[in-house]
Amino acid sequence: MSVAAEQSTTDPALQSWLPVSPESDFPIQNLPFGCFLAADGTPHLGVAIGDRIVDLHAVAVEGFFDDCCGRALLQATTLNAFLGAGADVWSPVRRRLWDLLRVGGDARLRNGRIERMLVKRDGAALRVPMEIGDYVDFYSSIEHATNLGRLFRPDAEPLLPNWKWLPVGYHGRSATIVIDGTPIRRPCGQRKAPGASAPEFGPSRRLDIELELGFTVGPGNELGRPIAIGNAANHIFGFVLVNDWSARDIQAWEYQPLGPFLGKSFATTISPWIVTLEALEPFRVPATRQDPAPLDYLALERNSSYDIHLAADLQTRRMHERGVPPKRISQSTFGGIYWTAAQQLAHATVNGAVTRPGDLFASGTISGSGTGTQGSLIELTWNGERPIQLPDGESRTFLEDGDEVTLRGWCETQGARRIGFGMARGRVEPAT
Amino acid sequence: MSVAAEQSTTDPALQSWLPVSPESDFPIQNLPFGCFLAADGTPHLGVAIGDRIVDLHAVAVEGFFDDCCGRALLQATTLNAFLGAGADVWSPVRRRLWDLLRVGGDARLRNGRIERMLVKRDGAALRVPMEIGDYVDFYSSIEHATNLGRLFRPDAEPLLPNWKWLPVGYHGRSATIVIDGTPIRRPCGQRKAPGASAPEFGPSRRLDIELELGFTVGPGNELGRPIAIGNAANHIFGFVLVNDWSARDIQAWEYQPLGPFLGKSFATTISPWIVTLEALEPFRVPATRQDPAPLDYLALERNSSYDIHLAADLQTRRMHERGVPPKRISQSTFGGIYWTAAQQLAHATVNGAVTRPGDLFASGTISGSGTGTQGSLIELTWNGERPIQLPDGESRTFLEDGDEVTLRGWCETQGARRIGFGMARGRVEPAT
Repeated sequence: MSVAAEQSTTDPALQSWLPVSPESDFPIQNLPFGCFLAADGTPHLGVAIGDRIVDLHAVAVEGFFDDCCGRALLQATTLNAFLGAGADVWSPVRRRLWDLLRVGGDARLRNGRIERMLVKRDGAALRVPMEIGDYVDFYSSIEHATNLGRLFRPDAEPLLPNWKWLPVGYHGRSATIVIDGTPIRRPCGQRKAPGASAPEFGPSRRLDIELELGFTVGPGNELGRPIAIGNAANHIFGFVLVNDWSARDIQAWEYQPLGPFLGKSFATTISPWIVTLEALEPFRVPATRQDPAPLDYLALERNSSYDIHLAADLQTRRMHERGVPPKRISQSTFGGIYWTAAQQLAHATVNGAVTRPGDLFASGTISGSGTGTQGSLIELTWNGERPIQLPDGESRTFLEDGDEVTLRGWCETQGARRIGFGMARGRVEPAT
Repeated sequence: MSVAAEQSTTDPALQSWLPVSPESDFPIQNLPFGCFLAADGTPHLGVAIGDRIVDLHAVAVEGFFDDCCGRALLQATTLNAFLGAGADVWSPVRRRLWDLLRVGGDARLRNGRIERMLVKRDGAALRVPMEIGDYVDFYSSIEHATNLGRLFRPDAEPLLPNWKWLPVGYHGRSATIVIDGTPIRRPCGQRKAPGASAPEFGPSRRLDIELELGFTVGPGNELGRPIAIGNAANHIFGFVLVNDWSARDIQAWEYQPLGPFLGKSFATTISPWIVTLEALEPFRVPATRQDPAPLDYLALERNSSYDIHLAADLQTRRMHERGVPPKRISQSTFGGIYWTAAQQLAHATVNGAVTRPGDLFASGTISGSGTGTQGSLIELTWNGERPIQLPDGESRTFLEDGDEVTLRGWCETQGARRIGFGMARGRVEPAT
């Protein structure tokens, strides 16, 4: 381990003895955590590398982690206990995995019963890897908040007075968070046409996406003990892609004065692999300068973000049937987000609220300022006024039945191996 | 069991062989479910009767429920599995308990090892009896919504256009739901004085209560499968008192446009004993007539509510020190609530959202129309303009450190034995 101790687990020159294609989201520099159904039907924790999953349960049985992590944490059916154990456990486990997988490292895995310990990723049944106690969604992209302000309050200042002082957010429904690939049933609900005397009930006609990232809480905090912003990173395990599907017509009618409810709670898709802060370290960038300066409890001397590229692709049913590949409808970046994860966590607990391992905090829609950088259809089409043109003469304002949306995220910068987040996909099914 | 099968478990003439004082909230007609720490420190499920708790774990060990409920459900450390089992299990368990506890019933408990099966309620450490996956708070009292509308938008219609068409609600933070008696730490946060150029940070100066009832979900529903309103009662186990503590200054600054967040998420107190729908059956009353008539998915031919009396008592530190009993500051009733529990559950799932056993749905503040019937200080004092006079010359607009608030609820009607909900208490501690 002397060599290992001196090398970074994100060194771009590192290679695994497992074949990993150059364009894979999951090189040895990434090692994201997830959960899959093992051959016997029980959930096992796993780590993605190339086109394989390292079965943490099976590797733990071999005792390869015995000096850095209790077996029970890795043989659990969810990540919660491991998340709660904190960086003192995460880091040694990551380093051991890296050593077991790298060329020239610990040979026990390579020489062991590989067929038991490495599962094909393609076809594996993935699960939401943690029990999510509470789910919070923020509104932290200034471009997104400005766009929605312009759309909904055209004659007023687009940003409300509180927006630059605190990360505006709300609690979402944790029960309805689903994994990549789960079909999205078009929700029914109440909507009211402008000028109509009464609302009507029916399937949403303005079904939208929200391109987001979310972070997973590691160790939680106790009631009445806020997480100081300088300590926030110790409470964050990693990031996933989040698609906060939104029914704009239901939302518009219901949301005053208590905020979004059924317009958002029918489905929230996350990507299956949690990319750790350690893997993201090479992609750390200074956070956006904030003016006005935030209040003390939100201020970090070196507040930082991560340079993460994000994209949303759309494939209609017709495109799918004709073999036309998905069209990229949005491309954005996370790095410039106004309120960072550390600020979100410090804010959400400053009143003494409890967080628990596995809690999910999402960023809110991430939009940029250029054409095609907006993270929702309501922005991309300017409330439906400017349809998106698709191949074969189709166009879209909001989603139609059969449309599949795929979110992707990746990091690439000079001097680092590209890593990715995998996908968060969902195909719209007709309302029942 | 032939006699038992013909008698109602809520018959007012029923007596238990256990002594139960006439003013007890927990006669044999009630039998509410909770959770307490047993002598060995493990959580046991229990049922309150008089000044005792029936230790369900211990009674199940004796096999007294073997023909009506799997032991595992009653020997669990939370109620969730029992809640998920539904009325086909709840009813036989209730009837067996009733038979074991009534005069002239099944003598096995009375003749058994009573000291193991009956625990003193006074001094027992009670716990939140279920893991609460998602917590929703509604806004279903028309008097409360009207009062807040008048306070915050004095020049406009007090009710927003959506209010009479759907039960407005939002998701709260489930991690911060605490049991009766848990101290309430005054939250810190951002607030902005009218006319100030910037917000400031500090302890809330407008700490308030919200007098509510909440229902606990029994069996949940699957993604995309709404709970039809006619079937809602099968998904509701029972009710608890809820105090949705609120920091009005934090809330006022943060809540636009996504609703309450930190102004509510620092603490929500519930009473420990879940009063079942079966126990509440004698107190069923017709629901408020709704105009306009609700849309079909919210319409029940015989929509009903429960005639539950509610009260909030306040005792300041000085009153406590001088032995002055608490002063009743609010007295209200649940029966007239505009949106009923069945409507709330049907609405919350109509978009396909998942509910899980143990989820909590609270009513929102329950206010009446007469003086002293409002369920929050902001209403009772009309935004602080009319302080509440207390004994010994004290007065209150909002809560001060050392103040203790106790919520109570009870049902009494001719021909039925009075039953109660116990208490939801919290004493305010200074901010840290």
